[in-house]
Amino acid sequence: MIDLRSDTVTRPTPAMRAAMADAPVGDDVYGEDPTVLELERRTATLLGQEAGLYCATGSLANLLGVRMLVEPGQEVLCDVGAHVARAEMGAHAAVHGLTMRTWPSDHGRLEVERVAEVISPSAGPYLVSTAAVAVENTHNFGGGTVQPLEQLEAVGALCREHRLGYHLDGARLWNAHVATGVPLEVYGRLFDTVSVCFSKGLGAPVGSVLVGSAENIARARVQRKRLGGGWRQAGMLAAGALHALDHHVERLAEDHAAARTLAEAVAEHAPAAVDVDALETNIVVLSTGDRPAALVAAAAAEQGVLVSALGPRMVRVVTHLDVSAEECAAAGKVLGALLAG
Amino acid sequence: MIDLRSDTVTRPTPAMRAAMADAPVGDDVYGEDPTVLELERRTATLLGQEAGLYCATGSLANLLGVRMLVEPGQEVLCDVGAHVARAEMGAHAAVHGLTMRTWPSDHGRLEVERVAEVISPSAGPYLVSTAAVAVENTHNFGGGTVQPLEQLEAVGALCREHRLGYHLDGARLWNAHVATGVPLEVYGRLFDTVSVCFSKGLGAPVGSVLVGSAENIARARVQRKRLGGGWRQAGMLAAGALHALDHHVERLAEDHAAARTLAEAVAEHAPAAVDVDALETNIVVLSTGDRPAALVAAAAAEQGVLVSALGPRMVRVVTHLDVSAEECAAAGKVLGALLAG
Amino acid sequence: MIDLRSDTVTRPTPAMRAAMADAPVGDDVYGEDPTVLELERRTATLLGQEAGLYCATGSLANLLGVRMLVEPGQEVLCDVGAHVARAEMGAHAAVHGLTMRTWPSDHGRLEVERVAEVISPSAGPYLVSTAAVAVENTHNFGGGTVQPLEQLEAVGALCREHRLGYHLDGARLWNAHVATGVPLEVYGRLFDTVSVCFSKGLGAPVGSVLVGSAENIARARVQRKRLGGGWRQAGMLAAGALHALDHHVERLAEDHAAARTLAEAVAEHAPAAVDVDALETNIVVLSTGDRPAALVAAAAAEQGVLVSALGPRMVRVVTHLDVSAEECAAAGKVLGALLAG
Amino acid sequence: MIDLRSDTVTRPTPAMRAAMADAPVGDDVYGEDPTVLELERRTATLLGQEAGLYCATGSLANLLGVRMLVEPGQEVLCDVGAHVARAEMGAHAAVHGLTMRTWPSDHGRLEVERVAEVISPSAGPYLVSTAAVAVENTHNFGGGTVQPLEQLEAVGALCREHRLGYHLDGARLWNAHVATGVPLEVYGRLFDTVSVCFSKGLGAPVGSVLVGSAENIARARVQRKRLGGGWRQAGMLAAGALHALDHHVERLAEDHAAARTLAEAVAEHAPAAVDVDALETNIVVLSTGDRPAALVAAAAAEQGVLVSALGPRMVRVVTHLDVSAEECAAAGKVLGALLAG
Repeated sequence: MIDLRSDTVTRPTPAMRAAMADAPVGDDVYGEDPTVLELERRTATLLGQEAGLYCATGSLANLLGVRMLVEPGQEVLCDVGAHVARAEMGAHAAVHGLTMRTWPSDHGRLEVERVAEVISPSAGPYLVSTAAVAVENTHNFGGGTVQPLEQLEAVGALCREHRLGYHLDGARLWNAHVATGVPLEVYGRLFDTVSVCFSKGLGAPVGSVLVGSAENIARARVQRKRLGGGWRQAGMLAAGALHALDHHVERLAEDHAAARTLAEAVAEHAPAAVDVDALETNIVVLSTGDRPAALVAAAAAEQGVLVSALGPRMVRVVTHLDVSAEECAAAGKVLGALLAG
Repeated sequence: MIDLRSDTVTRPTPAMRAAMADAPVGDDVYGEDPTVLELERRTATLLGQEAGLYCATGSLANLLGVRMLVEPGQEVLCDVGAHVARAEMGAHAAVHGLTMRTWPSDHGRLEVERVAEVISPSAGPYLVSTAAVAVENTHNFGGGTVQPLEQLEAVGALCREHRLGYHLDGARLWNAHVATGVPLEVYGRLFDTVSVCFSKGLGAPVGSVLVGSAENIARARVQRKRLGGGWRQAGMLAAGALHALDHHVERLAEDHAAARTLAEAVAEHAPAAVDVDALETNIVVLSTGDRPAALVAAAAAEQGVLVSALGPRMVRVVTHLDVSAEECAAAGKVLGALLAG
Repeated sequence: MIDLRSDTVTRPTPAMRAAMADAPVGDDVYGEDPTVLELERRTATLLGQEAGLYCATGSLANLLGVRMLVEPGQEVLCDVGAHVARAEMGAHAAVHGLTMRTWPSDHGRLEVERVAEVISPSAGPYLVSTAAVAVENTHNFGGGTVQPLEQLEAVGALCREHRLGYHLDGARLWNAHVATGVPLEVYGRLFDTVSVCFSKGLGAPVGSVLVGSAENIARARVQRKRLGGGWRQAGMLAAGALHALDHHVERLAEDHAAARTLAEAVAEHAPAAVDVDALETNIVVLSTGDRPAALVAAAAAEQGVLVSALGPRMVRVVTHLDVSAEECAAAGKVLGALLAG
Repeated sequence: MIDLRSDTVTRPTPAMRAAMADAPVGDDVYGEDPTVLELERRTATLLGQEAGLYCATGSLANLLGVRMLVEPGQEVLCDVGAHVARAEMGAHAAVHGLTMRTWPSDHGRLEVERVAEVISPSAGPYLVSTAAVAVENTHNFGGGTVQPLEQLEAVGALCREHRLGYHLDGARLWNAHVATGVPLEVYGRLFDTVSVCFSKGLGAPVGSVLVGSAENIARARVQRKRLGGGWRQAGMLAAGALHALDHHVERLAEDHAAARTLAEAVAEHAPAAVDVDALETNIVVLSTGDRPAALVAAAAAEQGVLVSALGPRMVRVVTHLDVSAEECAAAGKVLGALLAG
């Protein structure tokens, strides 16, 4: 099976397993796991922030990061397809009582004008108050879209002007960094809180880190415990993430190349199904035309290619370190044939 | 002072006060207030629904109505300027754990295409599930916009197709009814739950009624108690609302005419400040151009005209039964002069 | 029917209705209702506090008062039969995310030792933090129990020592005041927040007032709006409450005497059913022995006496201004006969 | 350092690390991690339940387990010192809107009479409804107390009678099983939901499993994702837990013996500080008399013994697989000397 459903399906390599097996550990609830502490410090430094908090999932890191910037009854703004709005099961409202207003976007791409139209910052005692803006880079449901740096900066300026918090869902920030060459620290410094994930393209088995100010991270640590996220000897997992930082960041370029190969193979047979020029990172969005996406996914699976049906007529294909360039090319042919004519 | 800040500022007339003074009452928590029961029955019948629940505010009626259709962690969809999203202080999330996604609109006007783009109904265990759509008619922040009946029907069909709930924030449904002649029952039957308000244009001192199925209203009654809304001898207030139903619905046409007079007076001096053709009911939205809205409102107040600054460059003027046509015309001149050149 | 189910069933007197009919009103959301403002000021002064907030129910006043002292995830302590714990439908948790720990009590009577055993004030990042203690005076489910002043003071000292908030559910504080002669202000000054109710023994149709510091009341006003409790022209209702303050406080002594008459009449036939010596105010708790309380209540209703079955073997009888001394005596005979032998 | 603060501080043994390093893994959000699935199945079988869910912490397993049995605004009953009430930071209220009422207990020991006094099961629309009872076995803050089987059964019968849910916080159920010889399945079958922990006495680095009916576990899985607990390739951690099941259950008897040795060493010097006869498992509670517990803990730390100050005059000592019998004896001497005279 060539599993292209998501870059979350990656399994640890033998070298990563070896690094994990030997990692020193301690009780992380007491702040005593040396490997976790190293991962938190190193990630914070990479992103130009003061402190970090290792979390079991990216959803948890986003949930805590946004909460540090928004009080119950206030709102966080984001685009209508953002992971925090669509793929976190309403947790920001259900768990923390935060509300959202959203705007449509082109492939998830940030435009400062859309944000400015919706902001309602100092809303007084009768209206909901905007407290933060959340941005996703790269944008998952948009198709791995890289956010333009000048738009990220412009929204940051808008947030400072209105004294709003600014959160980055950077689950795939590594891909943006590799695709653009913009240093991680340049991205990271724009925001109050940033989540990054080690369990997607980087290939570690579990975990994300939330970074931000020392004060916000200390508060997030308490809330992480309240949400049942205060694990104990997490150091072996953290060792996997540290190994990924050393060995799996730059190689994301290979995933981007493999995605292009795959997209071109599809386009050869079914040019209407994919916009090769729009492809920026490791996520290929295919239009299934008048075929139901679920049927296309099922037919592909029968030929050994696993993809995700994310909309009634939309299939998502994600390349990652567990699939080779050859497998991606082969998968592209299978999908192209299915979507042709 | 000519108070045009909102139609919520109306005071009960002597006749309404007399009706209230004599009303029979009982303990509404035990379901024994005859005047409340009459108001609930009569409102439900007017709107073609089974049952009603008298609430202290329109916000409470919306909060309960939406909750009957949406579970914690699910989402209700609405336009970005809807009262439920902007003017209820994040209560749907803070109190009930419901999340929202929104779309921009032209003066709050409903368009089925925008709704269809956002719906995510059967989202499985990984994505947020759309559980309901909420519509506001007339649309307050849109400027008293009347929703086109065919759009209301089209969105209703979409909701049925996807098995979604459909809530109407009908705080000013009376105005839509008077402006279009569409019977209240025709509007009411399109929805699962409808809130209507007696304390805005209808001039009763306090209260809204939520209507829906007998089962939903019974559940809403329990939740009303949990939210501290289970009042006791509310019948005197309900008598004010019943009086308003008898005497203050059709006269809303006078408010609409007075709003037009006012808008035309503004347009005479400051044609860029107001779109007279867009005016549909009793709410006039004025653009303050390059003047801050708060300063315009303050200057108008000095000349005896109270208006609301609802945005940095936007002022809202609302006509109602406590201001005469002459006062509205005079206010229009004051505002036109302030906004001219 | 002699309705002794609760003192919430009282109906406004003609004099109260007249006072309500003439009351000046305004938009209370804008803080412009003169009668509401007068009620809030006067109640705050009576209780030795800075400011007041008029609420539709005592449950809402308690919900807001406790919230001002406790953050989500913190706990408020109270006895196991307190109204805030048993009769507010879990609202403090469901709406505000506050948790509780409770202790058993003798008829709801406060004992500082029980509070001291449970307090966990500076609990660090791993344990729940006690943030406030709530006391009910008189205690409803305890049987109208008056809290001893020295216990109220001792718990107050404990709260100050541990920097905890201290809330009084004073729905029936009027009864405690009349029964003991302790000035309302002496009670009121012991607490950070106090709720008092006008719709029980005082006979106003609707409403409670929460009092506290100006800062807490300002915050509570915003949260009242979020919970859908920001009503508009509530002044007519407030006029009923003001009338009650002038005319219905001292007469509570009559209700206490009537309760005693009733209890003695029961005791004459069924001495095991009632502890006449324990009776302190207007609430009589009757033990139904081996008869189910619901059957006793139904049998009494057939003879024209309405009472509440509050437990499997417990019936509550409450005297109030809508029942005369003679009616209470007659009801006592009916109940005594039912509970005899 | 002899670290006796908690049995959460244990580190994986070399054999456990080896088992973890080789474990097959998959994406657990998709239900495809074979080692996680094996752990869930095996734990469910051990406890006589249908299905299991692997969670990052015991707090998360309790949070989900209780939620399956209780709706927002309902209550779960437990003793005043229960972990779910005291040590989970108000999460059941803050996250799920559940409220609690509690009773005092002798060392956390369950007594069916106390539960029966508090239950309020079919409370109608005005009172809070009891929906479940939660019991902790062994009881952490009670001092490792083993719950008597007949009391567990009696409360279970009470729950069935009133149609309440019944949750077991079995973080240290392994200790109860080893201390009494009662089969795990006998304990497990009494309850609707049970959490057990692998990261305390069993010595695995991370994780608990919640077991219950297939339907409840499926619902808990969705809610786990909403709370940010849906991790990906957790199989390496699960392998540690499986290793612990094979090798670390029966050896808990050694921890119990070491605790007794330690307690006896304390009692030799400071008999008032410890009740050796009350000791049942691996937790020793020491009274510090008139010395502040924090000072005693600090003084012990200077002599190489780490303990937890859990109350103003109470210290907790916990034995586990990372400390030898000799170390425990030595620690007992240090603590006895500090608490003597």
